[in-house]
Amino acid sequence: MNTERIFINQLLPGQTLDQVFLVRDKDLRTTKAGGLYLMCTLADRTGTIPARMWQVSESIHNGIAVEGFLHVKGRVEDYKGSLQFIIDACRPFPADKVDLGDFLAVTKYDVEKMWAELLEILRDVKDAHLRMLLKKFTEDVAMVTAYKRAPAAMTMHHPYIGGLLEHTLNMARAAKALLPLYPQLNGDLVLMGIFLHDIGKTAELSSGTSLGYTDSGQLVGHITIAAIWVAQRAAEISAQTGQPFPARTVDLLNHIILSHHGTLEFGSPKLPMIPEAFFVHYLDDMDAKIWMTTNAIDNDPDTNATFTPYLKQIEARVYKKSREL
Amino acid sequence: MNTERIFINQLLPGQTLDQVFLVRDKDLRTTKAGGLYLMCTLADRTGTIPARMWQVSESIHNGIAVEGFLHVKGRVEDYKGSLQFIIDACRPFPADKVDLGDFLAVTKYDVEKMWAELLEILRDVKDAHLRMLLKKFTEDVAMVTAYKRAPAAMTMHHPYIGGLLEHTLNMARAAKALLPLYPQLNGDLVLMGIFLHDIGKTAELSSGTSLGYTDSGQLVGHITIAAIWVAQRAAEISAQTGQPFPARTVDLLNHIILSHHGTLEFGSPKLPMIPEAFFVHYLDDMDAKIWMTTNAIDNDPDTNATFTPYLKQIEARVYKKSREL
Amino acid sequence: MNTERIFINQLLPGQTLDQVFLVRDKDLRTTKAGGLYLMCTLADRTGTIPARMWQVSESIHNGIAVEGFLHVKGRVEDYKGSLQFIIDACRPFPADKVDLGDFLAVTKYDVEKMWAELLEILRDVKDAHLRMLLKKFTEDVAMVTAYKRAPAAMTMHHPYIGGLLEHTLNMARAAKALLPLYPQLNGDLVLMGIFLHDIGKTAELSSGTSLGYTDSGQLVGHITIAAIWVAQRAAEISAQTGQPFPARTVDLLNHIILSHHGTLEFGSPKLPMIPEAFFVHYLDDMDAKIWMTTNAIDNDPDTNATFTPYLKQIEARVYKKSREL
Amino acid sequence: MNTERIFINQLLPGQTLDQVFLVRDKDLRTTKAGGLYLMCTLADRTGTIPARMWQVSESIHNGIAVEGFLHVKGRVEDYKGSLQFIIDACRPFPADKVDLGDFLAVTKYDVEKMWAELLEILRDVKDAHLRMLLKKFTEDVAMVTAYKRAPAAMTMHHPYIGGLLEHTLNMARAAKALLPLYPQLNGDLVLMGIFLHDIGKTAELSSGTSLGYTDSGQLVGHITIAAIWVAQRAAEISAQTGQPFPARTVDLLNHIILSHHGTLEFGSPKLPMIPEAFFVHYLDDMDAKIWMTTNAIDNDPDTNATFTPYLKQIEARVYKKSREL
Amino acid sequence: MNTERIFINQLLPGQTLDQVFLVRDKDLRTTKAGGLYLMCTLADRTGTIPARMWQVSESIHNGIAVEGFLHVKGRVEDYKGSLQFIIDACRPFPADKVDLGDFLAVTKYDVEKMWAELLEILRDVKDAHLRMLLKKFTEDVAMVTAYKRAPAAMTMHHPYIGGLLEHTLNMARAAKALLPLYPQLNGDLVLMGIFLHDIGKTAELSSGTSLGYTDSGQLVGHITIAAIWVAQRAAEISAQTGQPFPARTVDLLNHIILSHHGTLEFGSPKLPMIPEAFFVHYLDDMDAKIWMTTNAIDNDPDTNATFTPYLKQIEARVYKKSREL
Amino acid sequence: MNTERIFINQLLPGQTLDQVFLVRDKDLRTTKAGGLYLMCTLADRTGTIPARMWQVSESIHNGIAVEGFLHVKGRVEDYKGSLQFIIDACRPFPADKVDLGDFLAVTKYDVEKMWAELLEILRDVKDAHLRMLLKKFTEDVAMVTAYKRAPAAMTMHHPYIGGLLEHTLNMARAAKALLPLYPQLNGDLVLMGIFLHDIGKTAELSSGTSLGYTDSGQLVGHITIAAIWVAQRAAEISAQTGQPFPARTVDLLNHIILSHHGTLEFGSPKLPMIPEAFFVHYLDDMDAKIWMTTNAIDNDPDTNATFTPYLKQIEARVYKKSREL
Repeated sequence: MNTERIFINQLLPGQTLDQVFLVRDKDLRTTKAGGLYLMCTLADRTGTIPARMWQVSESIHNGIAVEGFLHVKGRVEDYKGSLQFIIDACRPFPADKVDLGDFLAVTKYDVEKMWAELLEILRDVKDAHLRMLLKKFTEDVAMVTAYKRAPAAMTMHHPYIGGLLEHTLNMARAAKALLPLYPQLNGDLVLMGIFLHDIGKTAELSSGTSLGYTDSGQLVGHITIAAIWVAQRAAEISAQTGQPFPARTVDLLNHIILSHHGTLEFGSPKLPMIPEAFFVHYLDDMDAKIWMTTNAIDNDPDTNATFTPYLKQIEARVYKKSREL
Repeated sequence: MNTERIFINQLLPGQTLDQVFLVRDKDLRTTKAGGLYLMCTLADRTGTIPARMWQVSESIHNGIAVEGFLHVKGRVEDYKGSLQFIIDACRPFPADKVDLGDFLAVTKYDVEKMWAELLEILRDVKDAHLRMLLKKFTEDVAMVTAYKRAPAAMTMHHPYIGGLLEHTLNMARAAKALLPLYPQLNGDLVLMGIFLHDIGKTAELSSGTSLGYTDSGQLVGHITIAAIWVAQRAAEISAQTGQPFPARTVDLLNHIILSHHGTLEFGSPKLPMIPEAFFVHYLDDMDAKIWMTTNAIDNDPDTNATFTPYLKQIEARVYKKSREL
Repeated sequence: MNTERIFINQLLPGQTLDQVFLVRDKDLRTTKAGGLYLMCTLADRTGTIPARMWQVSESIHNGIAVEGFLHVKGRVEDYKGSLQFIIDACRPFPADKVDLGDFLAVTKYDVEKMWAELLEILRDVKDAHLRMLLKKFTEDVAMVTAYKRAPAAMTMHHPYIGGLLEHTLNMARAAKALLPLYPQLNGDLVLMGIFLHDIGKTAELSSGTSLGYTDSGQLVGHITIAAIWVAQRAAEISAQTGQPFPARTVDLLNHIILSHHGTLEFGSPKLPMIPEAFFVHYLDDMDAKIWMTTNAIDNDPDTNATFTPYLKQIEARVYKKSREL
Repeated sequence: MNTERIFINQLLPGQTLDQVFLVRDKDLRTTKAGGLYLMCTLADRTGTIPARMWQVSESIHNGIAVEGFLHVKGRVEDYKGSLQFIIDACRPFPADKVDLGDFLAVTKYDVEKMWAELLEILRDVKDAHLRMLLKKFTEDVAMVTAYKRAPAAMTMHHPYIGGLLEHTLNMARAAKALLPLYPQLNGDLVLMGIFLHDIGKTAELSSGTSLGYTDSGQLVGHITIAAIWVAQRAAEISAQTGQPFPARTVDLLNHIILSHHGTLEFGSPKLPMIPEAFFVHYLDDMDAKIWMTTNAIDNDPDTNATFTPYLKQIEARVYKKSREL
Repeated sequence: MNTERIFINQLLPGQTLDQVFLVRDKDLRTTKAGGLYLMCTLADRTGTIPARMWQVSESIHNGIAVEGFLHVKGRVEDYKGSLQFIIDACRPFPADKVDLGDFLAVTKYDVEKMWAELLEILRDVKDAHLRMLLKKFTEDVAMVTAYKRAPAAMTMHHPYIGGLLEHTLNMARAAKALLPLYPQLNGDLVLMGIFLHDIGKTAELSSGTSLGYTDSGQLVGHITIAAIWVAQRAAEISAQTGQPFPARTVDLLNHIILSHHGTLEFGSPKLPMIPEAFFVHYLDDMDAKIWMTTNAIDNDPDTNATFTPYLKQIEARVYKKSREL
Repeated sequence: MNTERIFINQLLPGQTLDQVFLVRDKDLRTTKAGGLYLMCTLADRTGTIPARMWQVSESIHNGIAVEGFLHVKGRVEDYKGSLQFIIDACRPFPADKVDLGDFLAVTKYDVEKMWAELLEILRDVKDAHLRMLLKKFTEDVAMVTAYKRAPAAMTMHHPYIGGLLEHTLNMARAAKALLPLYPQLNGDLVLMGIFLHDIGKTAELSSGTSLGYTDSGQLVGHITIAAIWVAQRAAEISAQTGQPFPARTVDLLNHIILSHHGTLEFGSPKLPMIPEAFFVHYLDDMDAKIWMTTNAIDNDPDTNATFTPYLKQIEARVYKKSREL
């Protein structure tokens, strides 16, 4: 294998490679002469490149898994003005041996620092029952691991490893800054609502080698998943302490989770009915929209244009020159 | 007390009464002479009557609970062409000693027979895990008691004691009749989905002396309540059997529950994604609409009119003469 | 001609063919050398194949009708990994000599048996005037022929020859099964409403060699066409019997037809106002949605996926594994 | 009887009357002394007045028809600052002997002159088949009588006798003025479309002593009624002439009728698909909105206000001072 | 006049008053004996009381202005259990001599302190042109006076004197707290956008003795009014400095103003297209919704209920017990 | 240069050209041999043609501006059945030396005659202040020049040079024809409203070598731009005359401009509140829809089809054969 990984956006014609890629799709085709060859798309976190392998057997084709990893040897070529990769040899590569960060986009912030800061802010939660609930979640190692990895969404905003944590932390910071201005709000509910509002996404979005929805995510949805988890953990606490966990506390927390999309049309089965639910909803939407617009500005390849292309989520194009007057 | 209850729609001027009523509202007023008197509204399942009690003390007024029961003695009078009741003496009456059927509308069918028929139809469920889940629910005495009492809705359809059971049984009968025509459907999921689709209403609607929403019902909603219950009972079964309860089975059943309103606008957080969910949704809506229209026809006081008044739920008036040509 | 038709999904490189195809489109092009050649698409009910004919004259090109039939001789070739057909000779072929079933998808059920079963169910109609109206329709040979051939819709559901009959029969069977459960409904109106609800599609959809909308269908629509037909046949009956045909009967039947899409947005000029109209609407929608979802599951080429691609009609993807738990 | 009718808005305390009124509602009540008296509401086109008749029998009460006419003798009194009428004697009066114009609002224009002008404009229709169709309608005496009486709508615009004709004439005049500017339009279709677009209202709205919807109007609607009439008259012409009436002509005319509300939400089963349909739709909507706003301005009792009360049809209040700057 | 004002919510039967009220409505009525008496409603900021004046002349009635002030002498009486005021003498009172704070609700905060704090926050604006624009507005004495008096809305939120300032200050404080967390935003645009977003309300809402819309407000709207003002002041600055005022700066600021309602349906002619516009929109909506829900909780007269009555603006009832768990 | 321009829709293989084109896009590519070549798209008002230039340097590529003009020499070739242009030499060409009419679609009417007719109709405006305002606009040479050039819209209707004027004149003619039929309307407001309703498009749409939105157009929109202009010119008149310009006149005119899209969803911040605003709205919409449908009919390349392709703006296909029966 190459001593150091060469990313797809660094490839040049003539290079030879000996390293692992993610396979996005594959196709077995017939040459005019009647032989078989393989067409596939190789990917890493910086992009994709079409690849071709001549004179393959059906069994080689069958052995390659779409969305799986493939160790390839071969060379980069220029084909009709674009690059393609000619595979000389290949074999499947186990997923648990790759560095996923090479293949998936990741947050640019330090995950452990973000997690620590989030926990620090959550230390402001005073209510004893909410604190027990918080502990239930933060001491669940599998849950925490998934929380740190999950994206905030598939494509809408923060769609990368650590995105859920980054987005949640943004909201927690904003809540911490604004709560002193709105003393009539129950800060405990707000902070717990922020922490848990999208936690169902750890189950809704698959944790594999690419971002995608799980069957459970599609059939049930992250909102209901989160509400079920809150109810179950409250029941566990009650079973452990021998004390009833206040139903009203569960109901209020679940209300914030259920209503955080703000409207029924966006999949919330309940409209906000308490000031805290509105507060969480707006902080959520605001952080998402700022990400979307900032990201569209920063990643528009057409640097001459004053507007980005149309963004379906906001039903508009983004004007790119508001930062400076 | 009267040997036999006289209902409000049977009252005549001059009658004296000694029996229990439900108190809908109360008001303490001052006479021109400066004395205090009580105005309140008494109710039973046949209607309401205004009542007046002269020379009351504040403590008598305070002792009367709105939506509570009151044992009264007094007489019926004609006042400006309407009836009113003059209370001579009164005292609060415990709710657990009244026959609620005297005060709330009830299904006209036999609740126990309906329950037995529903269980009989549910016997068609073959899948072992769904059968265990069914057993969990049907052996929960408190749940079954609430299920038999709950209305199907506050005002929309079957809004009376036993209405949930009546509506659910109608759907189960229809499913039983139609499933042979649609063999591609999973009948087990359909039947369980029907049984559980509105079970959250036992918690959403209060079981007191009048129909109303509970705080939990308003904050969380019957759809999410049901989904939580299914998940919790599956977890209990798993704990008891030591075997995992298939997550996919829980997800599919919860999907039917979550999507049974058919659209996001009507409070379903998920749209139907399996044929069984569409099937349950249509049987539910069909039975509700037939109830609404039939009920509007049968209870229109204006027997000369060929149309009922406007019904907001269907955005139309109902034509009353379609039964015969 | 080949002794036996070879369908497009059976073609192999190297085969020679001498048989009839449907022409989907055609194009006359110029070679680099300046000669003319024909590009066209040939179709049968199993698919399409691109075809090419070298050194054609303009008159040959002009003689070929798009959506007409073409008798071709030639051979199948592999071109860039796909098949194409090289035409050596061709001439137009009369539509009345082909077996349309070779070119259009057809119901998998026996049309005559379905028609007989539908008539059998309709025998339950008791009202004398509705029976006369039924007879008017079922004794109209051209109408019945069209009824047996028509699809239920262009693409949404049952989009093949005999689909209208198949869908209507499904609804009639369901009504027969459910009417005993809802004795308050007027079964005569329900059955006639089901029979006639989509009969306008026999005029809305063209009966040629491919499915398409007629001008009349697009300008007026199948709902209004059906209402006009009912009114006209009632007038004919009246003229023949010398008795007035009850206007109320026509109005109620037309009301069911007009409102069967359920909402104004879906093209119904009236919302349902009688229980029978709701009943017909739900049976219609239910059968259509079960077809859509079942068909999407059964025909998804990606057999590994647990969800079908997105279905615009239901604004969701269909989960494919609900049949078995 | 009075030699000359005194209208309700001219009544003064102390007057005695001997004339006919329309009865809006009636109620039989019991006095404190146990006797019976009648309360009812009398109406003419200028307003309503409450009336009371002492010591009536049930048979007198039963003999009075709501929405029927009543010949009364009695006197006007001041009661708590308002007027009421004390009936001394009364008996039902036949509807065919009253001058309906006394009881219903009527157009302020001369109906016969409007009809003549409309026919004059329609003389521009050139197409032979449309001319035959026009003749069919205008030679139908009952139809023409109803056309001249019908309101354009119940409450929305031109809601009075002759309103349909007035509104249609306004549109015909506008078309005559604009057609020279849009020579690409088929003027024949436009003029016939205008003449027939609301003709179904002659059947949708009842022609009795007050404006109201007929059962047929509610179940089928004026749009479909008109489309049926056009189809039926075309068939009659064909039967009489022995020549087929062009289906395309019927389809286009019906398309304009069906689409003239402009959107599905407003009850059109088809959206406009030809320029002529858009043209008719906009002339219709424009004349209606100008009537609504002008009428709201002219009839606002609060002459100091610069805005009328909120008008639901336009979701706004009308500013009353735009006529002069 | 009373030495000290007695507010309506402090009145007791038997009191005599000699002070000024606001007149909400008036009516001249006839007694049974034929005399005239006046019925009117008197108001101050704590409520309303019906008043009666016997034996008035028409000229007295005509001299009283609805929404004007009236100096009355008379006494408070108990009438059928409610209070009413009997006027012995009255005469109109000039509006410029009353303390408006007695008649209109006012913010509970110190207006001058709020204004000073707002200006202090706005000192963070760095851009020279925006600073000139800010100066134009804040040095316009009439504008500042109106700004300090205006409500934020008629009924929706902060509907009292000083409400616009209170609401704007809340937003400015929130922006100051959050801007450090979103360094990619242009803080100058944000702060100026907040300051000006609702400034058009100073012209939209009348500054008289009760809150109401001006004609200009209804015809043009506060959003367009503000955009016009920004453009005009920029033009004035340009005229004064002899330098062009950057069009882009005006466009961006106006874009924030125009889009701050967030959707077209809520009256914004533009959707947000820059991150700063989303930011201002969410801070605006959040502060309004927190006010609405908090206000509904604090002012619900039914202290036993756990939910407030239905609030149309949020399409829900507010749960009142989220502040404490 | 060619003595006479040859338009793209006139090109034939083998022609040599020496003339100017508009460049739509450009791309620098590498041949298999490693050399550079240029691919670009050349355009004039009749269409586009792909062009290729071999052996170019990067500096040649960089010197070519997209949406700029390019003087090219070379020859037309047939490539795979389509035409392409081989550039032998090229250099940028100044925009102010081309005849824009060669590159952009233009109205087929005489612009000066249309302008004169529009002014003639506007001579009917009587109100002195509106006349002053009209003069302000029509004496602004830059404004008039832009007005005569601007399209009415980018793609929806009249999307070509002079389209705004053509559309506005159509509306003015229609108003002139209809105003005598609606004497209750303020004709001055109507005519001025028509003249100014889309004048903001002169700033919203760029006046370069292709139609496009300006930054200002996208951020602020033509509706608000027009309202600002009206307010500014009224202020100028006031400054010049020393007399206040009536605010009510500005408000009413701006109200017509602001509400002329008819609904909030279509970007109007105000709904029509005066009859004149409805009138202008309908004339605007009617002319636009007649253009859209007529244009779709006239420009459908498929002359056999009876319907045009689907038109998104009207959510329907247009039937092409309504002109003749």
